[in-house]
Amino acid sequence: MAQEKEVASGREWRITMADGSSEALAPDAGFAKIAWLALKGLIGGLVLKVWKFLKKAWDLGHNEPRKVIHCLKVGMALTVVSLFYYMRPLYEGVGGNAMWAVMTVVVVFENNVGATLCKSINRICGTFLAGFLAIGIHWIANRSGEEFEPFITGISVFLLASAATFSRFIPSVKIRFDYGIMIFILTFSLVSVSGYRVDKLMDMAGQRLTTIIIGTSLCIIITVVICPIWAGEELYMLITRNMDKLAGSLDGCVAEYFNDSGGLADSDKESDKKVLGYKCVLSSKGTEEAMANFARWEPAHGRFNFRHPWKQYLKIGASMRDCAYCIEALNGCVNSENEAPEFTKKHISNIAIKVSSDSSMVIKELAKIMKTMKKSSTIDFLVGEMNNAVLELQEDLKSLPALFIPQPLQEAECPENKSTEQDPKKAVPLMEIIPLVTLASLLIEIVSRIEGMVSAVEELAGLAEFKSVNDRKTNQNQTTNKVVPDHQGALQRV
Amino acid sequence: MAQEKEVASGREWRITMADGSSEALAPDAGFAKIAWLALKGLIGGLVLKVWKFLKKAWDLGHNEPRKVIHCLKVGMALTVVSLFYYMRPLYEGVGGNAMWAVMTVVVVFENNVGATLCKSINRICGTFLAGFLAIGIHWIANRSGEEFEPFITGISVFLLASAATFSRFIPSVKIRFDYGIMIFILTFSLVSVSGYRVDKLMDMAGQRLTTIIIGTSLCIIITVVICPIWAGEELYMLITRNMDKLAGSLDGCVAEYFNDSGGLADSDKESDKKVLGYKCVLSSKGTEEAMANFARWEPAHGRFNFRHPWKQYLKIGASMRDCAYCIEALNGCVNSENEAPEFTKKHISNIAIKVSSDSSMVIKELAKIMKTMKKSSTIDFLVGEMNNAVLELQEDLKSLPALFIPQPLQEAECPENKSTEQDPKKAVPLMEIIPLVTLASLLIEIVSRIEGMVSAVEELAGLAEFKSVNDRKTNQNQTTNKVVPDHQGALQRV
Repeated sequence: MAQEKEVASGREWRITMADGSSEALAPDAGFAKIAWLALKGLIGGLVLKVWKFLKKAWDLGHNEPRKVIHCLKVGMALTVVSLFYYMRPLYEGVGGNAMWAVMTVVVVFENNVGATLCKSINRICGTFLAGFLAIGIHWIANRSGEEFEPFITGISVFLLASAATFSRFIPSVKIRFDYGIMIFILTFSLVSVSGYRVDKLMDMAGQRLTTIIIGTSLCIIITVVICPIWAGEELYMLITRNMDKLAGSLDGCVAEYFNDSGGLADSDKESDKKVLGYKCVLSSKGTEEAMANFARWEPAHGRFNFRHPWKQYLKIGASMRDCAYCIEALNGCVNSENEAPEFTKKHISNIAIKVSSDSSMVIKELAKIMKTMKKSSTIDFLVGEMNNAVLELQEDLKSLPALFIPQPLQEAECPENKSTEQDPKKAVPLMEIIPLVTLASLLIEIVSRIEGMVSAVEELAGLAEFKSVNDRKTNQNQTTNKVVPDHQGALQRV
Repeated sequence: MAQEKEVASGREWRITMADGSSEALAPDAGFAKIAWLALKGLIGGLVLKVWKFLKKAWDLGHNEPRKVIHCLKVGMALTVVSLFYYMRPLYEGVGGNAMWAVMTVVVVFENNVGATLCKSINRICGTFLAGFLAIGIHWIANRSGEEFEPFITGISVFLLASAATFSRFIPSVKIRFDYGIMIFILTFSLVSVSGYRVDKLMDMAGQRLTTIIIGTSLCIIITVVICPIWAGEELYMLITRNMDKLAGSLDGCVAEYFNDSGGLADSDKESDKKVLGYKCVLSSKGTEEAMANFARWEPAHGRFNFRHPWKQYLKIGASMRDCAYCIEALNGCVNSENEAPEFTKKHISNIAIKVSSDSSMVIKELAKIMKTMKKSSTIDFLVGEMNNAVLELQEDLKSLPALFIPQPLQEAECPENKSTEQDPKKAVPLMEIIPLVTLASLLIEIVSRIEGMVSAVEELAGLAEFKSVNDRKTNQNQTTNKVVPDHQGALQRV
């Protein structure tokens, strides 16, 4: 089989060659020529690959300059920490242990502040605890005589490493302290086995802890001071961005179904991209969880308190995914070949588009609540509108049979003509409106899931103590002595 | 606001206290008593928490003994590597650098073979490359005089660290070499800054590389020899298990809708669990990708070659998720309050259950193909059956209006009576069968997505060269001279 594959790849390679050099290889071409062509092709391919890679990298840097800044920050942190080696007074303070500061910077420096803080605190605590414990056990082992010392140390390493590794499997521990436990195992093993050879154990432990603290402090200062990237803000941006995408998808998906004919090829691509926005929501769970986990370690920043309810964002994300699953099913049904006839489509299109635009309006309002961090006065009104549209849709569905039944009645002059099963004209309608009914039904389901989103966002507004917009408004009303009914005010804002 | 929170938490705490000690706190109770009760409550709560935690840990270990074995393996590896410190001849070989072996074991030892191999190879390559480069730059810096040395080293550290950090953002690099690049940065910084102080740079680099190779070899030997956990096999098990869950969900979901009345509370819970099996599929993307990524590093094991097409498993997983999205929508529609009347349900129940059981049969057959790693002779037949059932379902849907239209016709003796909008009996039907139509429509969509799964699994069967069951069967037929038609044979096997 290996031979077969080799042959296959050989063939492939030759085809590429022929493509690349646009010269047909005569079977009796000289060996030198073949070798030369092979080399040319190989180098050409390599250059092309490297070029493509560089282009991809450049695009990445161009699109996300913050990543480039992060890289420069890492380079800077490492250069600064190297000063410990170059400057005599600094080096004499910590000696060869300066290595640990460098190592700390490399390992701890992460893309966002939360992750850096999480790792830093984990590293310091893990090192401190493990060092403390290891020195204690070393002291006991020292007292018990030279023969037993390796055994006591060895057994303690075995037991603690096993237990600590096991605790890494417990989800609640893993989420917060995974890295700390690894450092705990590392430090404990290093200190307890080094203790067997190194005399000045306490000095070494102290120096190591100092260098680690120096390294982590440097990392924290650089991440926080220079263009900080906050995990919390990333999460917040991700959720609001996804909300907008969800609203766009819902609108686009329903509109696409009803206006299939219009649109140029160019705008089609654009709208396709818009319609498929919900796909991002489907696969965002991992990122959201990671970000929420890091955000918990972050201090107050921007508009977020230290104890901002990040967990609630996960709930909002889950409710958005619930919604996206239904949009995915809707998209599948919309794109299926089974098309409803135009006139039935027209009958329901207005109200279906109204339901979708009303619900996307609700989602956009939710996104606005998140963006402004203010409670909305219009959200209840918008939800009401959405539910009214759903009721209207249901009414319209009820009147749908009326569109079909009269036709056979008009043709069949006599009620005795009951052969409905045989007559295709009477039997067709339900079959033809199936896609419409499915669309309507899924829209109704989506609306009920959007209500889940609304309550999740409202819970967040309560937990994070979002300010009410009404406060200012009522004050204005009082000062101008002009009482606008709330309902109308809400309408105007829409 | 902070004060408010304090007050609130104080109240909460007192309520917990009152609950815990079941004694009402009189406002004039002595301070000592309050303190004693507080202490009692605190210790009680702590003990309870620790107990719960231990119980959870015990359950985890009990349910997944392989995790416990992994922990013991880590303990063992660390104890073995500690021997370098305890045994004089070993210690004299590597000196203080034995530390690197310990560190390697802690950092590299992962739960599955693929991850351990990935990290080991990354670590060795990263260290070697970085060491080589750093020594080269050190040589150049050394030649350029003592003033320039720190600058050349510093600038090279800055540039290389920045560039390497940037490459970690490129997805294709990140997937395979993320850890290697971190080690590259670490080693490069350490060696190039140490070079400024340490004279025997080459010796140190050599010893460090040796200890790292010793550490990684030990890890690899222990993970592979003692109860190995292969990432590839994990992925394979995950996919087949999820397929079974998907089939169970689909069956259960449709059956639940049509047999709402029957069943005890006990079996209800069981079936609920079965119905919700698809939820695992919805969120399995991350795990699948990680496992597929690690599986690529693994050598041939069990029934898997070295170049087993692990990427194809991701495609199968994606097609399963596509299917699960629709089941999620189906589940939502089934659980909505809008219920179809019993007699319409009955009209369609048989065929709908047939579609769902046929499609779950297809999924189960796919799972069987995966489990036996043999091509199935019945899969085409089963897919055909499934498609036939869909056609039947569509036929049944066509005949549904016939159930409703005759009724008004019989009552309305005269065709002039056209006021269908006002007559509730004529207008109701479509509204009532909406859930049924949606269910049918989603089932049809699910069937089309299952075909995507079938083609993904067939592609895998082609790529991984699954053996055909037919071969053996045809041989048997030839020897017994009894020709069974393929179609019938397939039927018998079902």
